[in-house]
Order: sequence, then structure tokens, then C-alpha cells
Amino acid sequence: MPSLQPDGSAPVAIDSGAQDMVGYAIDLSHPDGGARVTLDLAPRHMNRVGSLHGGIVAMLLDAAAGFSVSRSWSETGDALLVTVSLSTNYIASANTGRVTATGCVTGGGQTIKFAASELRDESGRLLATATGAFKRVRERRGP
Amino acid sequence: MPSLQPDGSAPVAIDSGAQDMVGYAIDLSHPDGGARVTLDLAPRHMNRVGSLHGGIVAMLLDAAAGFSVSRSWSETGDALLVTVSLSTNYIASANTGRVTATGCVTGGGQTIKFAASELRDESGRLLATATGAFKRVRERRGP
Amino acid sequence: MPSLQPDGSAPVAIDSGAQDMVGYAIDLSHPDGGARVTLDLAPRHMNRVGSLHGGIVAMLLDAAAGFSVSRSWSETGDALLVTVSLSTNYIASANTGRVTATGCVTGGGQTIKFAASELRDESGRLLATATGAFKRVRERRGP
Amino acid sequence: MPSLQPDGSAPVAIDSGAQDMVGYAIDLSHPDGGARVTLDLAPRHMNRVGSLHGGIVAMLLDAAAGFSVSRSWSETGDALLVTVSLSTNYIASANTGRVTATGCVTGGGQTIKFAASELRDESGRLLATATGAFKRVRERRGP
Repeated sequence: MPSLQPDGSAPVAIDSGAQDMVGYAIDLSHPDGGARVTLDLAPRHMNRVGSLHGGIVAMLLDAAAGFSVSRSWSETGDALLVTVSLSTNYIASANTGRVTATGCVTGGGQTIKFAASELRDESGRLLATATGAFKRVRERRGP
Repeated sequence: MPSLQPDGSAPVAIDSGAQDMVGYAIDLSHPDGGARVTLDLAPRHMNRVGSLHGGIVAMLLDAAAGFSVSRSWSETGDALLVTVSLSTNYIASANTGRVTATGCVTGGGQTIKFAASELRDESGRLLATATGAFKRVRERRGP
Repeated sequence: MPSLQPDGSAPVAIDSGAQDMVGYAIDLSHPDGGARVTLDLAPRHMNRVGSLHGGIVAMLLDAAAGFSVSRSWSETGDALLVTVSLSTNYIASANTGRVTATGCVTGGGQTIKFAASELRDESGRLLATATGAFKRVRERRGP
Repeated sequence: MPSLQPDGSAPVAIDSGAQDMVGYAIDLSHPDGGARVTLDLAPRHMNRVGSLHGGIVAMLLDAAAGFSVSRSWSETGDALLVTVSLSTNYIASANTGRVTATGCVTGGGQTIKFAASELRDESGRLLATATGAFKRVRERRGP
């Protein structure tokens, strides 16, 4: 799935197998400089108790935080980075509808930046929060 | 994909859409009481820099830690739980071969338990570590 | 040092040896329901590179988050709890003046609640952030 | 208090006001390359429920992890660094006797390294664990 932006503008061309598999969309157009990552929940996103899998929660929060950092280094969001650390708190569960992760940069410099992100359902209920540290990389490597 | 155990024994019947999508296998047979989660890396697991996606790293580490806790409450690993918090450090990247997450319980009681997990590649190189807190739940809910 | 409140109102009677040693003040009077923890930096708070020690940063952030949770369970802030997990990101350093940690509850229920906190210097510069999970306890034990 | 080493060898000359205030000792002599940080519990280390304060737990775990990293960059442990992120899980409480934090490096390179640490009481009971990312700095700044 291409990364269709919720506002209908051109999709962000992110070449990521994981994004295709999970099916989340990345929106880097918000004037606040942060990133939004949305996912329409489907059975393949669920854990064994029938709720959104904690690993996918972490994936969405990592993407929202990381793309916010990437965008802070490069408006188009193509600055490459690796996650150094990510801490997630799981506050409430979800099992249907669209969830949105919103990220924002909290500080840092040219090598390491910090960001926070939160995941909410369509009613605005907070599902999970994360904070992370991200390191800029100059060539294609990972994770 | 069913949860085939690496030792060839009967798969663990874990009804999880996310596990099917990602394709990891869960092994709850180790005599140390911990859980092993293995994944054969494929393009759909990669991030935009061509390495194992940090969200999938978190998913494997969460599963290994969580199933270790589940097994400590119930030998068959069917005690249900939710992740309260998970903190992941990303140490090295991987892009091919099989990776294995190994979890172990570090402490706790009947309501909350703590576990650590680590992810290694086939050569034993440490890729990432995580620690988490998990809460037992009695009925099917999540995450 | 008694826990003098910045607004001059009666101090919060918190019987804590660690608070006396470090010398931070706790303000539970803010109408937003959160807690403020302030510390006037002195040489005894510094690390070996002459900046506010990371452990004291964690202490202030833990206190601000934890007292916000305590206050959410009991307006006077005397509901007892233990920290389950705390994750801190260190964004910038400080070595003089007053620093203030502000906490807010992000979610949870009657047993476990989640809170976030941030530490800023007098100019409002963000020094560190933390998120934590806290569990209510009914009698005096710890940590 | 100077940083007396438990084996009776010469103390590590760490110029830290916070260490003096809290009174912990740092041992960098262990052949495994890690750092040990010990503290004899006293009333000034306690929280309001009479147990070792979570902030001091974080301080000891941060020191043990950080000095392990410092020592990996410089055998004498005088390589300067800042904590980027620290995540702590609180497993059990303590209120008397000596506690020891043991750190070990888990990976990383010349700029960022990762370490884990655990805090135990005299009977070996695990009280808390932490993982952290640390960044090398060349001059005296902080935190």
C-alpha cells in the first residue's frame, strides 16, 4: 500500500516492506512539523486476545516519532535515522476503527534527537504513548 | 503461518492475526521456562533503510518477554496478559537470516510480572534488548 | 527541608528522607490536577561533569509523575503507590538556577495509572522527559 | 564520602557532588569490565513509604551502567559520557542493608553505547533493572 496522505495530497514515497505489510499511512504535511501515522485496524493487526498487537502499537509510535525527527532534519522527511531507544506505555486497548499516532520532536541536536508520540482512536481516546531517541545516519543502513 | 516450533514439536496454537501476518514462531518448550520467538527475515520485515524494522524488533521482544511471563503463570503459556510498558534499545541492525528473541522473567507476583528479552542473529550477535512489565488479565481483552 | 509550596501555602507534609536530603519541594495545588516538583540546584546535585545528575533528574520526574497519579486517586495526594516502570530521556543539561518537573496523568484505572512528566529550567527550556507506570498500594511499603 | 572500593583498593576519584550526598561507592576493579555501585541504606535514602526511593534506585542503576560504558572506552573509567535514555523497572523494595548495582555493556560503538544494570540486596534478591543508552562527550558538560 502506498503511503496515502489523509488530506488527499500526494503520498509519501516511503520504500518500506514493513509499512506495506502492516498497511499504515504516513502524513508529513501537518504545519506543526510532526508526523501522523494512521492505520485502519484489521484482523491481521490483532493479538491473541483480539486487540491491537503491542508490537504494532510500538511500530506506529516509532514511525510517528521517527518521521517527526526526520522531518526536523529535512522538511521532506527523507533524512535517514535509526531508533536508539523507544519506551512505550500501553494505556488502553483498541480493536476496531482507525488509530492515529502523532509525533513531535522534544529536543536534541544534529546527531541525536528526541521525540514523543501518542496513539489515539477515532474518539480521541489515548491508547498508548512512547518516547524515543533517534540517531541520524548518512547512508542506507539500519535498523 | 502456524506457530511451528524450531525443535519440530507440535506448534503452539496461538490465535493471533499479527503473528500470522509477520510470520514469527513461538517456542515454549525450553526447560529454562523462557520463551523463544524466531523470525526468518524477509523483505516485508524491512524498514526504509533496508534493515529489520524497529517495530518488528519490538514485536518479537514483546512476544518473547510476554510469553515468558505467561508461561510463569501457566506452564502451557495460555495465561492471558497485557503489556503495561516496554522499553527497547536498538543495538545493531540485521537484514537477512533468522533472528531469535529469548525472554526470561525477572520478578513480580500474581498481578504484575517483569521480564527481559534479547534479540540475536544466527551468529549470536546481540541486536536489541527490551524490558517490560506485564499485567495478568482474566478474560479476553487487550492489548 | 519541608515541602514548601511555591505559592506560599502550607507545605505538603511528605515524610521522605530522600526528599529532605535532595531538597526538592512538592506543589500539589495546581488546578490542572498535576504535581510540580522544584529544586534549586546546588553543588550536591551535580555529576562528575558539573551538571545536574541524571539520577536526580529521574528522581524529580518520578516524583512529579507519581504525585500526579497519587493526586488523581486522592485529591490530597496521600494515596500511596509504587513506581512500576520509569523511562527517562535526557535532552539538555543544567547546572544552575531552579528546575521544575511537571507531571500529568495520561490514563489508567484503579490499580495502575500512567503519567508523563517533563523537567524545565527557569527559561522554559526542556531538560528531560519521563513516562511511568504506577501501581496503587494500600499499606506502607515500597519503593 | 570518597568512593571507597569494596575490595579495599584505592578509591576512584570521582568528583561528584551527588555521589557525596547520597554516599554510594563505585568499584571499577572487577575483571568482567563492569562497574559495581554499592550503597548502605540509611533513612535519607527512603521514600514516603519507608523504602529505598525510586530516584535513588535510578541513580545507582544509571551509575553502574554508565561507568561500565565509561570503562569500556577507557580502562580507568574516566571517559566522560552523558546518559541519553534510561528505563527502569521496579521489581521489589528494600529498606535496610547494602544494595549493589552491577552494570554491563551490551553493545554499541565509539559514539553511543548501551548497557544494562541490575540492583540486588545482600541476599541476592533482584530489586530493579535498567537499560540505557550513553553518548561519549569529549569535554566537561552534562548531564
